[in-house]
Amino acid sequence: IVKREVTRVITPGTIIEENMLDENNRFSILVDYDEKDEEFLIVLFDFSTGELYIDRFDISQNELLDMIISNNYSQVLLSFKLRYLKNEIKTLSSKIYTEVLEEWYFSSNYEEHIKESYDILTLGHLPFDQEELKSLDAVLKYLELTQFKKIKHLNIPKKLKSKEFMYIDINTLNNLNIVSNENRGKSVYDILRKTKTPMGHRKLKDFLSRPLIDEKQINQRLDLVEVFFENNFLSEEIKEYLSSIKDIDRIISRISLLKSTPKDLIALKDSLTQVPYIKEALETNEKTQGFFSNVNIRTDLKQKIEKHIFDEPSNEPGDGKVIKKGISKELDEYRSLITDIDTFLENIQKREKEKTGITTLKLGRNKIYGFYIEISKAQSKEVPDEYIRKQTLTNTERFITEELRELEKKVIIAEEKVKKIEKTIFLNFIKDLSDSVKDLKTISEKISYLDVIRSFAEISKTNRYTRPYFVKGNKAKIESSRHPVVEKFVDNFTQNDFEIEDKNFIVLTGPNMSGKSTYLRQIGILSILAQAGCFVPAKKAHIPLYDRVFTRIGAKDDIVTGKSTFLVEMMEMSTILNQATERSLVLLDEVGRGTSTLDGISVAWAISEYLFQILKSNTIFATHYTELTMLSEIYDNVITKRVQVKETKEGVLFLHKIENGVSDNSYGIEVARLAGFPSEIVDRAKEVLENLSDKVDLENRLKKM
Amino acid sequence: IVKREVTRVITPGTIIEENMLDENNRFSILVDYDEKDEEFLIVLFDFSTGELYIDRFDISQNELLDMIISNNYSQVLLSFKLRYLKNEIKTLSSKIYTEVLEEWYFSSNYEEHIKESYDILTLGHLPFDQEELKSLDAVLKYLELTQFKKIKHLNIPKKLKSKEFMYIDINTLNNLNIVSNENRGKSVYDILRKTKTPMGHRKLKDFLSRPLIDEKQINQRLDLVEVFFENNFLSEEIKEYLSSIKDIDRIISRISLLKSTPKDLIALKDSLTQVPYIKEALETNEKTQGFFSNVNIRTDLKQKIEKHIFDEPSNEPGDGKVIKKGISKELDEYRSLITDIDTFLENIQKREKEKTGITTLKLGRNKIYGFYIEISKAQSKEVPDEYIRKQTLTNTERFITEELRELEKKVIIAEEKVKKIEKTIFLNFIKDLSDSVKDLKTISEKISYLDVIRSFAEISKTNRYTRPYFVKGNKAKIESSRHPVVEKFVDNFTQNDFEIEDKNFIVLTGPNMSGKSTYLRQIGILSILAQAGCFVPAKKAHIPLYDRVFTRIGAKDDIVTGKSTFLVEMMEMSTILNQATERSLVLLDEVGRGTSTLDGISVAWAISEYLFQILKSNTIFATHYTELTMLSEIYDNVITKRVQVKETKEGVLFLHKIENGVSDNSYGIEVARLAGFPSEIVDRAKEVLENLSDKVDLENRLKKM
Repeated sequence: IVKREVTRVITPGTIIEENMLDENNRFSILVDYDEKDEEFLIVLFDFSTGELYIDRFDISQNELLDMIISNNYSQVLLSFKLRYLKNEIKTLSSKIYTEVLEEWYFSSNYEEHIKESYDILTLGHLPFDQEELKSLDAVLKYLELTQFKKIKHLNIPKKLKSKEFMYIDINTLNNLNIVSNENRGKSVYDILRKTKTPMGHRKLKDFLSRPLIDEKQINQRLDLVEVFFENNFLSEEIKEYLSSIKDIDRIISRISLLKSTPKDLIALKDSLTQVPYIKEALETNEKTQGFFSNVNIRTDLKQKIEKHIFDEPSNEPGDGKVIKKGISKELDEYRSLITDIDTFLENIQKREKEKTGITTLKLGRNKIYGFYIEISKAQSKEVPDEYIRKQTLTNTERFITEELRELEKKVIIAEEKVKKIEKTIFLNFIKDLSDSVKDLKTISEKISYLDVIRSFAEISKTNRYTRPYFVKGNKAKIESSRHPVVEKFVDNFTQNDFEIEDKNFIVLTGPNMSGKSTYLRQIGILSILAQAGCFVPAKKAHIPLYDRVFTRIGAKDDIVTGKSTFLVEMMEMSTILNQATERSLVLLDEVGRGTSTLDGISVAWAISEYLFQILKSNTIFATHYTELTMLSEIYDNVITKRVQVKETKEGVLFLHKIENGVSDNSYGIEVARLAGFPSEIVDRAKEVLENLSDKVDLENRLKKM
Repeated sequence: IVKREVTRVITPGTIIEENMLDENNRFSILVDYDEKDEEFLIVLFDFSTGELYIDRFDISQNELLDMIISNNYSQVLLSFKLRYLKNEIKTLSSKIYTEVLEEWYFSSNYEEHIKESYDILTLGHLPFDQEELKSLDAVLKYLELTQFKKIKHLNIPKKLKSKEFMYIDINTLNNLNIVSNENRGKSVYDILRKTKTPMGHRKLKDFLSRPLIDEKQINQRLDLVEVFFENNFLSEEIKEYLSSIKDIDRIISRISLLKSTPKDLIALKDSLTQVPYIKEALETNEKTQGFFSNVNIRTDLKQKIEKHIFDEPSNEPGDGKVIKKGISKELDEYRSLITDIDTFLENIQKREKEKTGITTLKLGRNKIYGFYIEISKAQSKEVPDEYIRKQTLTNTERFITEELRELEKKVIIAEEKVKKIEKTIFLNFIKDLSDSVKDLKTISEKISYLDVIRSFAEISKTNRYTRPYFVKGNKAKIESSRHPVVEKFVDNFTQNDFEIEDKNFIVLTGPNMSGKSTYLRQIGILSILAQAGCFVPAKKAHIPLYDRVFTRIGAKDDIVTGKSTFLVEMMEMSTILNQATERSLVLLDEVGRGTSTLDGISVAWAISEYLFQILKSNTIFATHYTELTMLSEIYDNVITKRVQVKETKEGVLFLHKIENGVSDNSYGIEVARLAGFPSEIVDRAKEVLENLSDKVDLENRLKKM
């Protein structure tokens, strides 16, 4: 690893080496600020795969910081206008690598520069305005400067939140544990990951975190999933082929940056070998037969690599085990000189033995001192004059001759030459490949899409998922739904229905651990899966097409920045109240808890009224404030649900079944007992509760609301 | 990086390369199970520094898993008895690298093997029983197998929780944010880190996470801190010297493993250079003069390195820029051949120019094709016959001659020889150093201790900390205390007193964001700092010597393993109730919140009674259940505190000042307004609250308890 000149600058966001990449943390972000529209401009990019997204966010600076910290970006680039944020980010997370890009990165020649980088003639067809293009160009310039070369492998940028996709905020992604996230256990993505290619894994994450909102597009995906769902043989065949496909995206990146290794090329060859088989297999079914039409599957490239590169090459060119015979005469000559050396040595040994009559004479090669003739000490006095003593060991002596010295020089020269020639040929080969990048990107895109669809089908089959159907309006009827992750880790997962007729505000009560949170989450996950184009874990699902899924679950505390749990909770809640529509799904778990009892209830009460009277979103509100269930006695569109509980001699049994009604108190004490509290505390708590429980008075007051 | 044979197996726990190490995640853990005593045996080790701890834990399997996940170990080794845990760990965190060690790792020859590894004659003086030694030996065997060599650089193991140290559980470490932790912002450690050496940084973490419990030992540290606190000149001088000291521990590890680089040796030399200066400076003060007595500070080693290794060597031996002149005659000869080459070439160029009369003739060297004579195309027809055409460029042609070819061969041979000889000399040099490992470890230990003490003094001086004094019994009197981290990030941090006379159970109420949690935490941090031997952020501190500091703050949710927030909370609470004594400090924040209102209050009430009646620990209980303040009207040893709040026209002003009394309701609604709720919701919540607030009835019932 001794490099004397800087050939590239490595930052967390510009790593391309497979073993250094962190799959959970592959995107970098550039943030700029549009003063006119008072919005943040954001460019997200993964340098190793070339993925790139641009968008505007009308959010506060705190929300921006929250977004940066929660998303765990590998690197943050700040526009000079946002220079002051650098320290704030450092304070919040010392791990994030942040750089400020000076004004000239966003300079006036951006249009020309972008056209040149993407090799396109006009920018008119891109859905980006001038400010967005400037930010894009700043990223391109930054990458060029770190790589010391033009960047050619980036994808044409896409809108991050486009009208095609449902925007799921990072809190909801985390709350529902959609994609994997450190220390959160298995995610929905982990369960669904039957994809076989690295690009497929990434595409699956993308599908799950950006579900569609257009019914036609969703049904296109579902139709294709259905083909594989019903045609197990085709699915298994395609799976087999996909399993041999490597990370084409990253190989492409390394090709464009001239950083490919010989093994990259073999991986590319092996991948390309599979594509014709896949194409052929898909042509056997009329619904999939056009999948690869208009795609050049580049069988020529495969052949070219086969001709030039050894099937099992070394990690780096230079030792003669990368470039095949017949490509360079010079290389072949020097290479054979090295391989012939053993025969040479054998001949010399035989000849010298005969000549001198020394029976213990042996030829050898020492890594440091070179070739030598070894003779036992007993016979060492018999050596001819031309032998030069070199080394004395315990029982033997080592000699060298002029002939051996010459031979060694030849070998050293040959090794040096092989190194240099092979490196040059290899580099030129990579340079030639750069022209194929566009075609390879198209192939990779097709493969990853297919991989996800097939994966959806496989998981839907194995886990008995069912195709979802979308209804107009906000009514819903889901039979026997399950939580796709939790059902994998418990025996006999309890299935639950979810039905919305007229009453679309559900107050859900029940003790902790009884399955309230699981139920809440599974209803959200089910809608996201459906709109991502996957079947869903239920017996039957007729559901609305949501514009957004909102969640307010759990809490985090942030002592240094001075935001308490309750403020964070209220800020998230405020976002929901300001953005939800009657086409949204809102999932609330324990909202209002971070303050004293009475004003907590008051806030929760007022939020509820606003949700069902003004916003009219489909809502589930799981709460320990049993007081909130009073709402259903006053308002028509509110219904109460609870989790079934059975009291037995040994204690309380949680049945995980959701039913109509309001939950009873006192299970908290039961949990304390389970957790191992000294029994005198448990008994005393029961006594206290009994004295408090006469709550007729409170209820009367609430009914008057 | 092309290695043909496996020379070591790299796992997350056996990395020694500086740039690959993660400071926050340097310990690996081995877990075994003692069936007889029903306890877990744990060995913690940091391979890169040689630190090693052993201990027994009488905890449940869930607590063990929690410990593994929360501590973010770089690697987990499971005894074959605990094989079944491997999947559970994978499920909880896919990032943790786990291996199972088969039965033979824990086999019968462990005593001999340990003696051999540590080069000691008997194990009798180690405070470990047979089972613990077996676990230790399993670690040694594992490391040997991954390194393909005997492990010599590990420290003699210590007890993790020994009677010398206060054991702080991981929840409390996290809750008080004592040592740094991803995504939690600045920790106490971050603020206190004025240590100058890498060993000092690690030692500081160790001091903070394992405070002392023996008053004499604590005062020894405090006395030494005081020396530097009062003697600024000495402190600054030592700081200067420490700044030049590198990571001796890790250099030692790499020396024992024969993996040192030339730069390691220079770093070691530079570090050793400082030690005599430090010793001398310490001798100027009578309280510190004996610090280095009985320590061999190895000035000989420094000289030895100086003699052999270049001051600014290459990263790896092999290019002749590591071993100094005069060490090997052979090396010097080949090296001068290479350096002479420029003069050779110049002479040839001059001669050929004169001979041929070609004015554009120039000699050059190309990395791939070797030496050449370059001539402009115009003059290229005038070349002599012995010039052989090699390459044609746009404006010039390149030739080679027999002489140049020979010269090139010589250079290549010389380069090869330099490479091999220098590598051999270097390796032997490192082997020689292995004998000094023990002395170097002692020096490193002394340096790191000094570094932390001096750092304590510096931070105490700059941040106006004061020396703590320990009182008998559980009374406490702290004047004007501050939170060492938060005070750094807010203007005019509000100082607060903490006094315990007879009433040692404090019920603390107040709105969120008013500073309740900060106050609670700072009282805990202050005691930990004091017992670690550091001055504390207060004007005056007379405090008890605690046996444990317990906290129950915040919440985390764990949906897959089925433990709800409330159960986790109750389990942690249960641990406290079972372990706290009248010499403990217990800090509770919002305990009981995860269940319905009334049974939450009941549980909190019963916990409180148990704490002040049975356990008698010093306790602060911050709560939103204003109902709990009733306790003070019934029991003598309970006192209520609240955070001062001022109502102004613009809204509520939080003064962060703690005073006697009970907090008022309604601030939760104020926070909702601040968070940006639509105003109709805020108004409605106030209306609801007014209707609920007639709580005379509830209070009456509680008073009857």
